Amino acid sequence: MPDNDALCSLRWDATGQVVEVIDQTLLPHALRWCPLDSLPAFCHAIAAMQVRGAPLIGITAAFGLARAMADDPSEQSLADAQSALLATRPTAVNLRWALDTVVAAVRDLQPAQRAGAALRAAQDLRRRDIDCCAAIGDHGLQLLRDLPHDGPVQVMTHCNAGWLATIRWGTALAPVYKAHNAGLPVHVWVSETRPRNQGINLTAWELSRAGVPFTIVTDNSAGQLLRQGMVDCVIVGSDRTAANGDVCNKVGTYLKALAARANGVPFYVALPESTVDWHCPDGGQIPIEERSDAEILAIAGLDSRGNRQEVALAAQGSPAFNPAFDITPAELVTALVTEHGVCQASREGLRKLLHER
Amino acid sequence: MPDNDALCSLRWDATGQVVEVIDQTLLPHALRWCPLDSLPAFCHAIAAMQVRGAPLIGITAAFGLARAMADDPSEQSLADAQSALLATRPTAVNLRWALDTVVAAVRDLQPAQRAGAALRAAQDLRRRDIDCCAAIGDHGLQLLRDLPHDGPVQVMTHCNAGWLATIRWGTALAPVYKAHNAGLPVHVWVSETRPRNQGINLTAWELSRAGVPFTIVTDNSAGQLLRQGMVDCVIVGSDRTAANGDVCNKVGTYLKALAARANGVPFYVALPESTVDWHCPDGGQIPIEERSDAEILAIAGLDSRGNRQEVALAAQGSPAFNPAFDITPAELVTALVTEHGVCQASREGLRKLLHER
Repeated sequence: MPDNDALCSLRWDATGQVVEVIDQTLLPHALRWCPLDSLPAFCHAIAAMQVRGAPLIGITAAFGLARAMADDPSEQSLADAQSALLATRPTAVNLRWALDTVVAAVRDLQPAQRAGAALRAAQDLRRRDIDCCAAIGDHGLQLLRDLPHDGPVQVMTHCNAGWLATIRWGTALAPVYKAHNAGLPVHVWVSETRPRNQGINLTAWELSRAGVPFTIVTDNSAGQLLRQGMVDCVIVGSDRTAANGDVCNKVGTYLKALAARANGVPFYVALPESTVDWHCPDGGQIPIEERSDAEILAIAGLDSRGNRQEVALAAQGSPAFNPAFDITPAELVTALVTEHGVCQASREGLRKLLHER
Repeated sequence: MPDNDALCSLRWDATGQVVEVIDQTLLPHALRWCPLDSLPAFCHAIAAMQVRGAPLIGITAAFGLARAMADDPSEQSLADAQSALLATRPTAVNLRWALDTVVAAVRDLQPAQRAGAALRAAQDLRRRDIDCCAAIGDHGLQLLRDLPHDGPVQVMTHCNAGWLATIRWGTALAPVYKAHNAGLPVHVWVSETRPRNQGINLTAWELSRAGVPFTIVTDNSAGQLLRQGMVDCVIVGSDRTAANGDVCNKVGTYLKALAARANGVPFYVALPESTVDWHCPDGGQIPIEERSDAEILAIAGLDSRGNRQEVALAAQGSPAFNPAFDITPAELVTALVTEHGVCQASREGLRKLLHER
């Protein structure tokens, strides 16, 4: 069963029976694999953001359901596990979809058959995710090849939509890895992505592990870099894509899209078809998760003795507001890059590419 | 001599003889007034950024020169003090200008008269700065009064351009304080302003001290707040204003200007005439200071025992790039607010308001 490699976010332990995930809350300071050997462990891993990124959340939840079926394949256990896993994160549409997929595969089976079927369904989702991301990478690579540039292709990204957010390859970073593997020189501007710093913590770490050159910048400097011609394209991921091509992604994405547009730089959104929400006519219908103000007011890092330490940034009792996502309107998106190809960010573009297949 | 109040950045001690400044490196976690009772103390306060903000730096240096004259009014002492103070932050234009002003006032006097004259010159600079900021506040208040709004006027700002950067009132925040004092309800969205977090450390602190309601947000969320109609206007300061109205200000300003424009929200820049550089035709001619990558890769805060602690955010050896300012093109600026009134951000607008007086 295992086909582990060095650039993947979820693997099997040595027995081949227990799923392990990288505890992403400890990156970039420590690489620790966490065994997930019970439903509560899976729920905790998602809720505590040890795993994050819509695709990885979905697949982790699928394996969580398989685990629950192995422990107790009853009807009640299936329903309880599904609702416990669904409650871990509010925004990600992949989570519901992945759980529905596994539930559909086991619901009508005899209890004794459920554990195996659930595991096969989860495995299948995992394999499809890898294939999907690889395909996004191939389509995106063509866009990178077509960009006029001197020296390495200068890609700016936001947050983390790399292999840490999926199983392998990533979405926004898949074209970067494909370029790197194909010998097309590429350099990535990694935006730190406050407040949770996924850029510094995750994107910089995973690029470094893959040997891709990168430079960390503050979110604030994106505009200046784009204005100075230091960026050939921006590629970001999508947590949810409305039917009209509006994109809901990590807060700060919209500012980069505005700055890319103002400076004539292509702004690509890389996404699996599974993030497209056909029931959502436009971005205005997508609820924006509001997260704890503690994420802004304090931060963790390594102290001088190498210990993880949280420090307060603001005066005690300071009020803060922490929307986790923003909406980038379709008109700012140069193109959507999916596993099925590249399309215009519009209802028409999405329908042609995805519906009519 | 003293006309101290609670909302000023530089005051006299109880004897009325010694200048004291807030050690801004300790904010927001501690309020400590540092007595500056010798030339080295003044030099240290500026070099170590206990005081910062172009106007405050210049006036602090002027008082440093007065202190040096009180201690030793010789020709040699004057020259030594001038060069020592000038060397503290060699790039700040106000610093040179303030020192030149004091030197011109004492150079031709007998040594015995120099201490008094230098102190009067420094006092005069201080008074003029307060008057200038108050006038910016009055003109800006009119703009706030004219905004359509429900409930408090929602102002977004960036970095710190308040009384901590000047003597009193501030530039961008002067209209906010004037509104608050006039009974016009106002609420400020404080952008944290990575990498040095002047928003969290300074703006939030000084607003809180003045009793003005505020909320801290990440720099990334500015776009989403503007898109959702949660902001009635953006007001920022300017470190240098080109003759065509392009504005050089803390990095991240440009992104807010783009988002304000995209959402039909007025974007005001508040500035004293002294920041206008007539020799600089446009923003493209303004060199952008690049600061240490350490400002991005590590951050200081209070640990659980209440001690100031610096923690590393990034993996050791991570490359980073840290431009400190960006350029906001004049066409994104709704109006410039100066001590002489409000004008269009254009060569024509600036000339009419400032040149033809």
